[in-house]
Order: sequence, then C-alpha cells, then structure tokens
Amino acid sequence: MKAVVYKGPYEVAVEDAPDARIEAPNDAVVRITSTNICGSDLHMYEGRTSVEPGKVLGHENMGIVEAVGAGVERVRVGDRVSVPFNIACGTCHNCEQGWTSFCLRTNPTEGVDGAAYGYAKMGPYDGGQAEYLRVPFADFNLLELPPGDDFELDFTLLSDIFPTAYHGCELGEVGPGHTVAVFGAGPVGLLAAHSARLRGAARVFLVDYQRDRLALGAQFGAEPIDFSQGDPVEQILDATGGSPVDRGVEAVGYQAHDPQGEEHPALVLDNLVKVVRSTGAIGVVGVYMPEDPGAAEEGAKQGRIGFDYGTLFSKGLRMGTGQAPVKRYNRELRDLILSGRAKPSMIVSHELGLGDAPDAYRHFDKREDGWTKVVLHPTA
Amino acid sequence: MKAVVYKGPYEVAVEDAPDARIEAPNDAVVRITSTNICGSDLHMYEGRTSVEPGKVLGHENMGIVEAVGAGVERVRVGDRVSVPFNIACGTCHNCEQGWTSFCLRTNPTEGVDGAAYGYAKMGPYDGGQAEYLRVPFADFNLLELPPGDDFELDFTLLSDIFPTAYHGCELGEVGPGHTVAVFGAGPVGLLAAHSARLRGAARVFLVDYQRDRLALGAQFGAEPIDFSQGDPVEQILDATGGSPVDRGVEAVGYQAHDPQGEEHPALVLDNLVKVVRSTGAIGVVGVYMPEDPGAAEEGAKQGRIGFDYGTLFSKGLRMGTGQAPVKRYNRELRDLILSGRAKPSMIVSHELGLGDAPDAYRHFDKREDGWTKVVLHPTA
Amino acid sequence: MKAVVYKGPYEVAVEDAPDARIEAPNDAVVRITSTNICGSDLHMYEGRTSVEPGKVLGHENMGIVEAVGAGVERVRVGDRVSVPFNIACGTCHNCEQGWTSFCLRTNPTEGVDGAAYGYAKMGPYDGGQAEYLRVPFADFNLLELPPGDDFELDFTLLSDIFPTAYHGCELGEVGPGHTVAVFGAGPVGLLAAHSARLRGAARVFLVDYQRDRLALGAQFGAEPIDFSQGDPVEQILDATGGSPVDRGVEAVGYQAHDPQGEEHPALVLDNLVKVVRSTGAIGVVGVYMPEDPGAAEEGAKQGRIGFDYGTLFSKGLRMGTGQAPVKRYNRELRDLILSGRAKPSMIVSHELGLGDAPDAYRHFDKREDGWTKVVLHPTA
Amino acid sequence: MKAVVYKGPYEVAVEDAPDARIEAPNDAVVRITSTNICGSDLHMYEGRTSVEPGKVLGHENMGIVEAVGAGVERVRVGDRVSVPFNIACGTCHNCEQGWTSFCLRTNPTEGVDGAAYGYAKMGPYDGGQAEYLRVPFADFNLLELPPGDDFELDFTLLSDIFPTAYHGCELGEVGPGHTVAVFGAGPVGLLAAHSARLRGAARVFLVDYQRDRLALGAQFGAEPIDFSQGDPVEQILDATGGSPVDRGVEAVGYQAHDPQGEEHPALVLDNLVKVVRSTGAIGVVGVYMPEDPGAAEEGAKQGRIGFDYGTLFSKGLRMGTGQAPVKRYNRELRDLILSGRAKPSMIVSHELGLGDAPDAYRHFDKREDGWTKVVLHPTA
Repeated sequence: MKAVVYKGPYEVAVEDAPDARIEAPNDAVVRITSTNICGSDLHMYEGRTSVEPGKVLGHENMGIVEAVGAGVERVRVGDRVSVPFNIACGTCHNCEQGWTSFCLRTNPTEGVDGAAYGYAKMGPYDGGQAEYLRVPFADFNLLELPPGDDFELDFTLLSDIFPTAYHGCELGEVGPGHTVAVFGAGPVGLLAAHSARLRGAARVFLVDYQRDRLALGAQFGAEPIDFSQGDPVEQILDATGGSPVDRGVEAVGYQAHDPQGEEHPALVLDNLVKVVRSTGAIGVVGVYMPEDPGAAEEGAKQGRIGFDYGTLFSKGLRMGTGQAPVKRYNRELRDLILSGRAKPSMIVSHELGLGDAPDAYRHFDKREDGWTKVVLHPTA
Repeated sequence: MKAVVYKGPYEVAVEDAPDARIEAPNDAVVRITSTNICGSDLHMYEGRTSVEPGKVLGHENMGIVEAVGAGVERVRVGDRVSVPFNIACGTCHNCEQGWTSFCLRTNPTEGVDGAAYGYAKMGPYDGGQAEYLRVPFADFNLLELPPGDDFELDFTLLSDIFPTAYHGCELGEVGPGHTVAVFGAGPVGLLAAHSARLRGAARVFLVDYQRDRLALGAQFGAEPIDFSQGDPVEQILDATGGSPVDRGVEAVGYQAHDPQGEEHPALVLDNLVKVVRSTGAIGVVGVYMPEDPGAAEEGAKQGRIGFDYGTLFSKGLRMGTGQAPVKRYNRELRDLILSGRAKPSMIVSHELGLGDAPDAYRHFDKREDGWTKVVLHPTA
Repeated sequence: MKAVVYKGPYEVAVEDAPDARIEAPNDAVVRITSTNICGSDLHMYEGRTSVEPGKVLGHENMGIVEAVGAGVERVRVGDRVSVPFNIACGTCHNCEQGWTSFCLRTNPTEGVDGAAYGYAKMGPYDGGQAEYLRVPFADFNLLELPPGDDFELDFTLLSDIFPTAYHGCELGEVGPGHTVAVFGAGPVGLLAAHSARLRGAARVFLVDYQRDRLALGAQFGAEPIDFSQGDPVEQILDATGGSPVDRGVEAVGYQAHDPQGEEHPALVLDNLVKVVRSTGAIGVVGVYMPEDPGAAEEGAKQGRIGFDYGTLFSKGLRMGTGQAPVKRYNRELRDLILSGRAKPSMIVSHELGLGDAPDAYRHFDKREDGWTKVVLHPTA
Repeated sequence: MKAVVYKGPYEVAVEDAPDARIEAPNDAVVRITSTNICGSDLHMYEGRTSVEPGKVLGHENMGIVEAVGAGVERVRVGDRVSVPFNIACGTCHNCEQGWTSFCLRTNPTEGVDGAAYGYAKMGPYDGGQAEYLRVPFADFNLLELPPGDDFELDFTLLSDIFPTAYHGCELGEVGPGHTVAVFGAGPVGLLAAHSARLRGAARVFLVDYQRDRLALGAQFGAEPIDFSQGDPVEQILDATGGSPVDRGVEAVGYQAHDPQGEEHPALVLDNLVKVVRSTGAIGVVGVYMPEDPGAAEEGAKQGRIGFDYGTLFSKGLRMGTGQAPVKRYNRELRDLILSGRAKPSMIVSHELGLGDAPDAYRHFDKREDGWTKVVLHPTA
C-alpha cells in the first residue's frame, strides 16, 4: 500500500509500505478515506523528536472497516468509523476511568503512558497517512459514523483536534456564561473557541498574530486579539472594561514565540496567569515536552518552564494539562455535527491526495498564509 | 486590651492596643479564648514580607461573641464561635461561589483578592493574638460551636490549618481508596494526612525529615518517609512495589529546602510530578509568593518556579492551588470533631498565655524539636 | 403605593397598600420597573393554595434601588437590579452552599425551608406587583444590572423563570451533545429548551399541545412534539430512529393533564421515565405539592404520585427536584443576555401597566391563545 | 461440573451441569473459590421472578482463571480474580461511560439494559454457584487480586454487595462530615453503613428491626435504630436533637414491610423523604421492579410506588437509583481492604460447601437469626 513515510528532518515521501493487516483477534483494518496533517506531525517533520526514519506518519484518521479479527463483534466490515488518535486497550486502570490518552498497556516505551499512530515515543504503531491502517482493540477504539460521505470534513476532525480542543475547555472548566481567553489560533485554538461557544461561553477571546486565522475565529463567534498589535492581556482587559476572564485555554505549547518569532516557552502561561481571574481555571492542551534539546533556554531543554507560579498560587488558579482522551468526547461532538450545531470543517483549508503530502508538509510547516488545515484522501 | 504586636524582623511584643470594637452594622467583637501561631506568621516574623511594624498578628482565632452590630441577627452575644482566617463579605462574585479566600470586596490592596486578620497584604485588619477581635460580616463569617469548652484544642484548628489541609486534599482530588503522597509534615501536612484518611484514602505517605513530626503523622495513620534518609520518590515507590501514587498534596511552599537546609523552590513540585501517576492530581496549599526578594534564585525572586512542567503535561496531571476558603469545610470538619472521627488537636504541642507569645515565636521559628503547634489562650 | 392584591379565588385588585420601607439594616427598597405574572401566581389566583386575601402578589421583580439600610454597602441607591424570587439570608447552612431556595432563616412557616415574595407558605413577605418592594438582605440577594433600560424584557426573566428553567437542565444534567426531552412549553419549558441549547444540547424535543407555544419553541431551536396528535414518547422515538433521549426536563407539575384537560398527576413523570435512556437523568422544576386538596385522586391529595418507579429503578435513572436557587445562575444568564447569546424575552407576549393586572390574570389563567408571558411596568 | 440449579419455587438442587468453557475469543473460564448467596437470589428462589427452571444461580463470584480465549491478553491463567456481577461488553455507549450495569450489548432481553450471571431477565448466562464459570469479555470484566488466599472473605464481597452498598452512598452523595440514614441492615445496608464511614460520614444511623444485624452495624460504627421500637424518623430526630440527616440510602427495596411483616412498598421511601433535610440526596439500591405480580397493592403490581413525591419536591431532594456498576468501585474497595481500612467480611455468617446450598437457601430465605451472609466454596 502507499503511505507517507518519515525520511529525516524536513523530508517525507510517499512510498510503498507493508499492507496493514489483522495481527491480533481484536484488531481491525480500516481503509482510510480521510487523514489529516497535524501540528504535532510538524514536531517530527522538523526533526525535533526521536522518531526514526521509516515511520509511517498520521494519527488523525477515518475511513471504512475493511477487515476485523475474530474477537471483534461490535464493529462490522463496511462500517464508517472515526479512529481516535489514542490507541487504548480499554481494560487498564486508566482506560477504565476514561483516560484513553494514558493507556497503561499499549505503549512499551519506558516512562510513557499512552500510545498513538505514527508518533514519536507513542509506541511502535504505523500511522494512517496511508491507504490502510491497523487498529488495535477495534471494538473499543472505533467510533461509528453514519454511512455515506456526508460530513466527511467535519468527521475527520473527530480523531484528534476537535476533541483535543474540547478537552482544553474541559480542563479549563469552561461553562455557560463564562468569558474565556484562548491563546493560539491554530486548528486546536480555533476549535477550542468553537468548543467554548458550544459549551455556552458568553464571550471568547482568541489570541494570535496570524490574521487569516483570527478571521476564521471570528466566524466561530470569537473576538480576535492580535498580539502583534500590543500586549494581549491589556487588549482583553480593554475589551471587558477591566475584568479578567473566567477561564483560559492554552493551545500553543512549548514553541510559544513572540511576534518576532523568538521562542519564550513561559510566555503563554504567564499571560494566562495574568488574564484569568482569581479562582479561575486554565486548560493546557498545547504540547509541553519533558525534553526539548532544541530549546533556547537551559531549563526548557529539560522541560522546565519558569512561569509565574507565585501569582498562579496567589490567585488560587487550577490548571489541567495533557493529551485528550478522544473517546470521552467524540460521540457527543459527532452528534453536535449531525445536528448542525458544530461545524469544525470551517478550518479545513486544503483537500489533497496522498501523493500531495510532501508538498503539503512543506507549506504547512512554514505556516504559509491560508494553510490552516490539510486533509488527505488516500482512497476516497 | 493586650495584643501581640509585630515590631520588626524577629521581634514581637505583647503591648496595649486599642480595643476591638463594632465599626459597622455587620461587625461583631469576639473575646478570644484560643489563637494559634501559624507557620505563615513566621514569614512576617522573619521580615520576609511587607507587613508594617505595629500590626497585631494572629489569624487563627476562636472565642465568645462579646458584641454585635445592628445588622447582625444570626450570631448572638455569648455564642462560642470559630473565626475563619478569611475575611469575606459574603456577597461578591467569589464569595457567592464559596471562594471566601478570594473575596473581592474586603481587601483594598492593589492586585490582591482576599483578606485576613493580621496578615501582610491581606488588608488593614488587626489580628486575634489579643484579648478581643473585630470580625466584619459576622453573620456570614462566624461558625457556631457548641457552648462550653469541650474540644477547644480541636476547634481552634478550624480557623485555618485543618480546613487548609483539607483543601489540599480537595484540590488534589483525594478520594476513597487512593494512595496519597503528602509533602511536608508541619501542622498543615500532618492534618492533610489526617484529612486524606478521613476522605477514605487507602494509604498516605508523609514526607519530611523531622522525626517528631513524622512520628505524629504515624498516629494519624500515615506512613512516614524521611527524606534525609534518601530520595523520597524512590522510598515511596519501594513501599508500593513500584506503583506511583494516585494523588499528591504540597504542604511545604516556596521555602522548600533540602536536608542540608538549602532552599530549592522547585524541589517539592518536582518530586510530586515524579511520584504521582499519569492522570493524577496535585493540591498545592504550601504558599508560593509572586515576589520573594529573599529568594536565592533570580527567577524565584519574581515568583518564577522552574519545575518540570514538561513531565506534568506528559502525564496529564491537574494541579489546584491557593489559600483555602475555610467556610467551605469548617462545618463538616466541626461535625467530624464532634463525632469523634477527627482529632486534629493531636498536633498541638504547647498551650500558653498571651504573654508567652514572644518566646513562643522564637522557639517555633527555629522549628525546635517538639514545637509543632502553639495555642495561646488570651482570656480563657 | 399601588399594588396588586389577592382578594379571593379568581379575584385580584389594584389597590393602595402600605409603602414598602426599610425595616432592618440589611434591607433595601426597590422601585419596580418590571414585574411578571408567573404560572405559579395562578395557583394562588385559582384559590388552590392557603394564601390569605390581602396579600400583595408578585415574585418576579426588577427595578431601581430607591433606599438602603445602614448595613447595605455593596448595592447603592440608583443601581438597576434583578430581585431573585428567593428571599435568602445568605448565612445559613443552605445559603452558604448556594441553596438560596431553601433558606433556613427567612421563613417562619412550619416545615417549609425557603421564602419568596407574595407567595403562599413562603413567608410573610409582600410581592412586587406594586410600585415598590422591600428586599431583605439586599447585598446578598440583589443582582446588579447595567444602568439604563436596555434588555429590560430579558432581564425581567432573571428573577425566576429563566433560572428556574436552567435549573431544570442542571438537575437533569443536560450537557453538550445531549438529546433532551422537555415536557411543557409554558414559559419555563420554553426557556428550558433555550437553556438546553445554551448548554450545548444537540437536539431538544419540546412537548405540549398548544400550537402557539410549540411554534415559539421552534424559534429557540427545539423540535415541537404535539401530544394532542399522538403519544409523545412514540413521536420522539420516531424522530430519533428509536433511540431514547439522554436527558429529560419536567416543566409541567402536578396539574399535568391530557389533551382533553383531565388531570393525571403521574402522566409526565411516566412519559419521562419511558423516554429517557437507562443511566440518564431527569430534572423536575414543574411544581408538585405535599398537599393538594383539589386533586382528583386520593393519593394526589396528599402529594402521593404513583408513577412508574419500578422502571425508573430498572433504568438506573437519577432525578433532581425543587425550586431553583436563582442566585446560582442569574449572573451567568445575565452575561449570556448581554453577549447576545440568550434572548429569553422572545416569550414575552404582553407588556402592560399595573392597572391592567386584573384583566391580565383573567386572560393568562385561561391560557388564552397568545398569552404566553405578561410583564407589568408599575413605574417605568 | 457441579452447580446449584433452580428447580422451581423454594427449590434448588446441586446437580451436574455442562462444563463452563471458552465460547468466544474474549472469554475466560474461572474456577470458583468463593460464591455467595445474595438477597436477590431469594427473589428467584421464592418464585417471584420469571427465571426458568434449570438456570444455574449465583452472581457473586471469585476464583482463579482456568482458561482464556485467544483475544484475552491482560488476564492470565492462574490469576486470582473477582468477577463483577455485571456482564459488560466494555465498548457500548453505557460501558464507555462506566455504566457497566446497563450494558447495551450483552443482554438480548427486550427492554432491559444490563446483564448478570444466573439472574432473571439479565440474559442467558449461567451463574457461578458452581465449580466453574464462563466470563465474557474477561479482560474488561475481571478485577485482579493478589495471589494466595488472604482476604478471601473480604474479596468475595467485591463482586456485588460491597460495591452495591458503596453505590448507594455515591447516588446518595454521601461525603465527609455528613449525617446519614441507611434503611435496611441486610448485607447491603450493613456495608452501606461501612461505606458511608469510609467516605467520611460523621454519623450513620442504620434502621432495621433485626437485632443481630443492628448489632453488626454498630461494629461498623453505625448507630442502630430499631423500628420495631417506634417510628424510625422520630428516633433519628431524637438522636440528632431535631436535625434531619444530610443524606439517605435505601437498602430495602420493593418488599419493604412493617414490623408485623406486612408489605408497604412506599414505606421506606416515605421515611427517607421525611428524614433527609431539604437540599439533600437519597441513593436507592434496594431493588424496585417494573412488574411485581405478587404485590399486595394494585399500583405496585405495575411497579407504581405512590410515595410522598410532593414533599420530595418541596424539599428539593435528589434521588439516584439502580443497580451498581461494580467496576467503577471494586478497585478502590479492594485497595481499602488491602490497607486494612475496609473489613466487609465482618458480615459473613456462614462458610459452606457447594453441597450445602439447598439448606443454606432455606435458612437464609427465612432470614433466620444469625444467617446474615452465606459464602459457598465450590473448589477452594
């Protein structure tokens, strides 16, 4: 089968790879109709992780069940399904509590709980930027979708970034009537703004400096804050008449940088601590790493982020972090799509074939204007 | 009236001070039967805050209502009451959500939400290490106690450290069956261990290096971990057969130090991030400050604590912080005392008169052996 | 001052009544700009309660603070405020936990917790269908509104039915992505449908037989179910392809009746038990009474409702009941109005003067077509 | 293999039955070391259900894994395990939310969600009062226990009644400092009292009329209320000085009867509604049935329980009901047993061999003095 293979820093290729196949009784094989390029694929693409050349990339996948193992009985061949990026066993301590993002059994990597397709340190699994994908524990992991091809571009965002964005709101305890600040208007930040509104937020501020993305945010009902035009905290306080916000969402991560492009890993956390009111909460879904050899600062190389913890404490803030357990949210988000209330596909900027992947990685990595979200259709 | 007055670094005196009196219709005056010296009084005593000489200290108070204003109708003269250290209006946005520790109306200090008696930056209020104390918004703030003098040494811990310790467990989401690590076996840490057990924890590890305090912890059902004998994380993992703990409580604060006495403000947070399992939670009630001019490290002077945030994120941990809203817990904790299930007075090491306060501060500040918790009885 | 006075069954009159005035230090007097007639006013109007002739009616009030007592310091003369129908002390056990609808101190009536303005068994307080209203514990009870007269018809619904409707969704645990059945399309049911959507529900079914009300519901995004056209449970299952709903809201109460007008007090509860899926929840804000001498069935006269409890248990349903603690929700709902997301005024059918009250009661009591919600403006 | 087989009303026999065996890839076979007789087995024994003769009874099982199917990889042959009475698929909508008691896939019975071993209407599965038991979806359902035979009598209560009792406290929202009334001192009520204390309750009242059971309750720290000595509500109010309790647990069910033995299915619910304070909660784990042909009252035959709903509403009570999802609690309860905090085996009155089952059913069904809980050891 054809697949997008990591070759080394800034290089991916579409090559022949071994066919995905049933390897265990609870496996399924899914024919991929849509698979997206994610911002975290770029961490690997840029050589900023330990991923080995030869890995098939792609953890945002959906498609049609092609084959199932002898133990699979809920999902059936021909079903249209969304594949959560988390590979979860469904039976360990964390999975039984709904924390599929921290499965204790699917990832043999030392010191890491949780597995994913085609991802550094998240286990030996190949990704789904390919014609076919092997899915372990298929009955547990797969989400059923209505047959046909309606909502394909919405549903394809159920495998990762829509639930991830929503998880940011959950960790940040965003609820009805709240005023919310979302930092970062990449795909996750945009859908965090969308999620905040779906959860009943009264006002949502979306902070970034890329105008096309801020404009998209406005379509989701967010108020854009362009931090290249001045301190974002002051801009938000101006807009609220001086009131801090109730809740915050971090959708940027350790590569946070100023408008000039210089990295300041504590920048966004500091701003959130400033702008959220005492007793508030912050959800962090932008990725922070235990090790980042490419970091500019010494502490940051070891994952140490010296943000303003004293003020965090003085304001009595709560902070939740980490990768999203997709299964906890994808069913309800699917139903919001079906009812017409959620429209995450508004962020999709490009639909391409599998062969276009190398070009797409190049453009997306440069965050070129208009390249918000790329969906590949290997077999549709 | 007689009162304990802050004179300057390492100096307090018992002096005549203006009588506490009704200043507003919702005030009460309480005759103090018991008032404790708190670890955070020592921050002021050591000159490590901005508190001005002349301040009457003491925020852990209880006694008998001596007088009430015209608007007070629930509490009556003669009632025995516990006075939460938080001075809360009962009607602002934070108070109405139960966050009395972050009252928006009682503290005119710039940038600080929440007020307290006799405390740096927490408003102009005198403390209760005195014969009498003025209590604003008395109907809202005061907790009624059974008449008489039963349980005096238990009830006196309801004004701050028992609810503070319990709040650490609440922020750390400690529940039935959990294994918990509490760092710090000072009065708050000891009562956090007690609280964790009351909330149903299966096992509680209590980390410190002072043997007398660890021994007290064992009486509360905790398993002592002496970090002067080796890495506390490894000791805990040895005790569990290698399993990380479910939940953590930080009861140390920014003055965390190694067994040699050298301060490392990130030390305890780092250990908690290591020892708590993925998907777990950490409650932080040890105090961290936005500014600490006396800190050894540059970042720490501005409240920046460069702990291992990358691992926090990778493990998907949640962290809650800040001063306790005493009222949220003191009623239930009182009832646990009355039913005989809670016995916080086990930590009280000294009962003294008001005139003994200068000596008591001196001994307690040196953390002399056996000086765990001092209760003063100004009028009992 | 002029006020709407209950004279006896089916008779109210606009008469001179003693001026509202400050009676205690924490009182305020509010000049009423808007006051609504509520469905529960009709219970009194119809003589189906123990309310005495001479009572000034009206518990849905808003206006301008005219005077304050010596203990009031947060609210100021001239402030525009919403007055929750609950009269709460702010300092009892229930109030401190946010249950202002069950205040333990403001109602001397035997066996009843909770007080209200102008309401049977809810204490000796006169209502606000008058030029002025006395508000006890004003700093605690009053919600501040922006000055001016914008959003008057939205804000006037913050005193009772919008928070009551929202409380039905809270008790029914309505959340993002849910499918919800709301029984009753009176003002509370309509706003329960609105609230369910604001909380992120994917689909909302609204059950009634009055076409004008069902049409209004559709404007809030609900799918109307006309139970005069067939079994509502079957109609809902038809619409979902056979799936039961996730959550239910009861907005009818003990006077539930069939399309022919015959009362069946268990009818709505039975339908909810049928239509909500196993593990689901039901919020009950339609009023049920401990005694109802006018009931048709013997049990119902003593408040006994023989609904299908066996199936409730077999499906593992949860059920929450009771009057809404308005303060818990009115701030966030106000902010949703201000941001333009909530528009409860869509249900207001009539704006009248105080003198029109007798006519308005007559029309509203007959549930005449188009008489959905009446707002009186005594002094605007 | 030998098994306890239902023959007809009031008759069970120990007979040869077909060996339990692997029938699907995710099955395991467990050799039964302990299996208990449950109060709900008596519903079948008494012929009050639709269970067919020939059924092997027994849903409270534990033992050693004897064989596993090809898809089972977490659990291994030789593991000591507890078998939750719920048979759950682990992958349906309810299971993924932790509601294994309402699995949508394992029970083909019309209108019933949830399956169990050897139980009327809960699917075609044989029970574990036998030498061997087939366990579907073994990796999901089985709870691992430490090897050996320590704590056997405690662990054997993890399959049903300890988690069921704990679920009553969860549904009743029992927490630290609460005063709780538990109705029914059968095995579930006794362990509900134990659970309430483990969850931090300050006082627990346990209501029954059987003295031996009340005495056992006292050993768990509960205060016994003998309702043959007078109205239990009045007795509780006497003990509290007139305060209603915070929370209630129903551990009796539809066969509630007065001291004279006459059934009053609304009796316990009425008492709970009376004795729980406004704003409180009630957890119902005593079983109520949609149909009970043997009931005395007409409504009760159809599952209608005409309890005092009007007062429930007036007090704003919440009520949760239904069978326990054992998996949600059994891990933490196991850990509480291991740490020595929980000691559910205190209720076990008899340990017998499989051949003693017919006698044991007879004695237990008569609720003979001292027959609190019977454990059978088919193969130990």
